Amino acid sequence: LKTSFETISVIGSGSWGTALAHVLAGAGHRPILWGRDVAVSESIASAHENSKYLPGLKLHPSVTASNDLVAALEKSQCIVCSIPTQQIRSVFGPFAPLLKNKIIVNSSKGIEIGAHLRVSEVFAQIAPTAEYLVLSGPSFAEEVVKGLPAALTLAGPSTETAKRVQNTFSSAVFRLYTSSDVVGVEIAGALKNVVAIASGMVSGLKLGHNAQAAVITRGLAEIARLGKCLGAQPLTFLGLAGMGDLVLTCTGPLSRNRRLGEALGLGKSLSTVQKELGGVAEGYFTAKAASSWAQSLGVEMPILREVYGILYEGTSARDAVSSLMRRNLKEEIE
Amino acid sequence: LKTSFETISVIGSGSWGTALAHVLAGAGHRPILWGRDVAVSESIASAHENSKYLPGLKLHPSVTASNDLVAALEKSQCIVCSIPTQQIRSVFGPFAPLLKNKIIVNSSKGIEIGAHLRVSEVFAQIAPTAEYLVLSGPSFAEEVVKGLPAALTLAGPSTETAKRVQNTFSSAVFRLYTSSDVVGVEIAGALKNVVAIASGMVSGLKLGHNAQAAVITRGLAEIARLGKCLGAQPLTFLGLAGMGDLVLTCTGPLSRNRRLGEALGLGKSLSTVQKELGGVAEGYFTAKAASSWAQSLGVEMPILREVYGILYEGTSARDAVSSLMRRNLKEEIE
Repeated sequence: LKTSFETISVIGSGSWGTALAHVLAGAGHRPILWGRDVAVSESIASAHENSKYLPGLKLHPSVTASNDLVAALEKSQCIVCSIPTQQIRSVFGPFAPLLKNKIIVNSSKGIEIGAHLRVSEVFAQIAPTAEYLVLSGPSFAEEVVKGLPAALTLAGPSTETAKRVQNTFSSAVFRLYTSSDVVGVEIAGALKNVVAIASGMVSGLKLGHNAQAAVITRGLAEIARLGKCLGAQPLTFLGLAGMGDLVLTCTGPLSRNRRLGEALGLGKSLSTVQKELGGVAEGYFTAKAASSWAQSLGVEMPILREVYGILYEGTSARDAVSSLMRRNLKEEIE
Repeated sequence: LKTSFETISVIGSGSWGTALAHVLAGAGHRPILWGRDVAVSESIASAHENSKYLPGLKLHPSVTASNDLVAALEKSQCIVCSIPTQQIRSVFGPFAPLLKNKIIVNSSKGIEIGAHLRVSEVFAQIAPTAEYLVLSGPSFAEEVVKGLPAALTLAGPSTETAKRVQNTFSSAVFRLYTSSDVVGVEIAGALKNVVAIASGMVSGLKLGHNAQAAVITRGLAEIARLGKCLGAQPLTFLGLAGMGDLVLTCTGPLSRNRRLGEALGLGKSLSTVQKELGGVAEGYFTAKAASSWAQSLGVEMPILREVYGILYEGTSARDAVSSLMRRNLKEEIE
């Protein structure tokens, strides 16, 4: 196994990018954390703290903040991507030559709006010579920076590279499991937000714990069904990037997607909810992309279909649940 | 498909047996609910209420309570088992001839202490000519009796019988999915209690949401690994009897097993905790049975091993978590 990377750059100084830089520093590296926000970089440089996204939490002193994207991309062979999925193309695109033969560890979830591309597909277009891996799993940034334990899935096509990156990140509190299933990890990370909306609706409708567990489980089952048609391994969905992340999203502190679902379950209109949330939750877009996949592949996804109906066709949450319960009786694994 | 059963008897008038009788009545049947407790039967007959286990909740008037086990077993072709697993042999054994060629729908979870038998194996000894199915999934009895929706897995070797029982129980709020994986459903139902203890420890140690999601996910992964060696289908663990029930157990109202784990995580001694709980949680026994299986089959189950160490060998919860995090780095699916 090759030794670790000389320098690693984390692109994106939001809460999760910052947490990953902190993890890398704790594992003995001196990561560069790039962000556009000068105030964030200055707070990291002067006080070892991301005052905007992780206020009050001390970062490892070996984290170096930077606002120079070219330098950050030039200096490192391993580039961690941690910016919003819809910005990946515009941030990395202009500097594509700097990604030549690099190792990209993507930690951003979601699907690019428009052509409905997974992040690996976006990078395959921008940087076809780079080696792409995806890191995903149950991980609130705050807990990671506090030094609480976490375990995630790291997927990439080359076992050797995956092991190298696994060793680079791992510590006594941050544990990575390798996988070769990039598609499965990406689909799980993106589509969990649709299930989070459905889970929120069940809360809003006050349908109880049994219904909550059922919608989470059957939601993941249909994501696995879609994933299989897209080339994923079904057992990936039983893993940290699948079940693990979904359980965290649906039972941990309220996410934007669950809040959206809950408000719809309480009978509020979509426009009212979006005003309250101050914008659109990511699951709103993912539901559209996934519906188009499901339709073109002929995959039955009843929970997705009902969430789509509520978001785009004005179905009421109560009617949606009722039609889910009244479907023809099925086998569990189809 | 055959029409439904003329009479169905539910053996066991605890909260779950009562809820199942209520479900059957709601689906148009006139179930006999057998229990030893005369006060319970009388409260059902006089007030349509199980005053002991589900006080304050109205049961469907078509539920008939009985204290006559022979009559209950004689009258029905379909027998629902809902008594504690350790009592199955002593309750049914003396009346084994009455189970000849019957259909048994078992809803009790756990492993028989001693020979470490699954419930299907116990019934195979008592009633070898009966057709055995197992019903399992996320289901608090109270919510079911309140009419809130629930979805469960029903597993049995014959598709025809499974569909018949599925149709018998199903309604607009109670939805069964069929499966042929009896072993997987039984293993999932029994071993979830070990993961519930581990999940409670993580709470007691205040390790956060990430660690909670990780222990639940990796716990289920190792149960699936054991299950596979015992003949189960790995994808069963992604289903309602696997992930669904585990999520409910680990995130719903505190169960005895989670309380046990939490108290151990807080540093209390096992004997203190057992005094507080007023008895032993089921996961305590299951951990022993599962450890012996894992050892004889050579299956690596690190979370089980640590739970066993805490329960039987005096390991501290903190040391257990620490050794889980310091294991060799792994692939996610082995």
